[in-house]
Amino acid sequence: MQPSKLDKILGLEIQRRRTEKGWSQEYLAEMTGLHRTYISQLERGLKSPSVRVLSHITSALSIKMSEFLRAVEESLSADG
Amino acid sequence: MQPSKLDKILGLEIQRRRTEKGWSQEYLAEMTGLHRTYISQLERGLKSPSVRVLSHITSALSIKMSEFLRAVEESLSADG
Repeated sequence: MQPSKLDKILGLEIQRRRTEKGWSQEYLAEMTGLHRTYISQLERGLKSPSVRVLSHITSALSIKMSEFLRAVEESLSADG
Repeated sequence: MQPSKLDKILGLEIQRRRTEKGWSQEYLAEMTGLHRTYISQLERGLKSPSVRVLSHITSALSIKMSEFLRAVEESLSADG
């Protein structure tokens, strides 16, 4: 599957919010029950998470999915 | 995979917005390039769409993903 711009920006937004909290990928993996390798693939836009998986991630990051996706949509439209 | 409350409410919200437009599942399938059977599974909460798939659906339904998910989150919290 070709990485889409959506998946790339979504991955960067996960990474931005994770590092803002000072968390390692390992720690986010632990918090969400996902594998560290999968977190890494998500952050690089190589995977498109299911809404269910995204809800675990945003819940760990203490943000609503809708707010998280609003930030992603804003980056997407700023990016053209 | 056990249907989660999130997937169920997300499916109902897709169905609600599709029928509001007077569209059949076949028509939404055509608009998104997804299979009719898959749309049916999504609407029944049997599948959790990827964010990428959800973006195709919300785009066909002329709503932002963030707004769509805000409605889902509101239903989830109203539901307890």
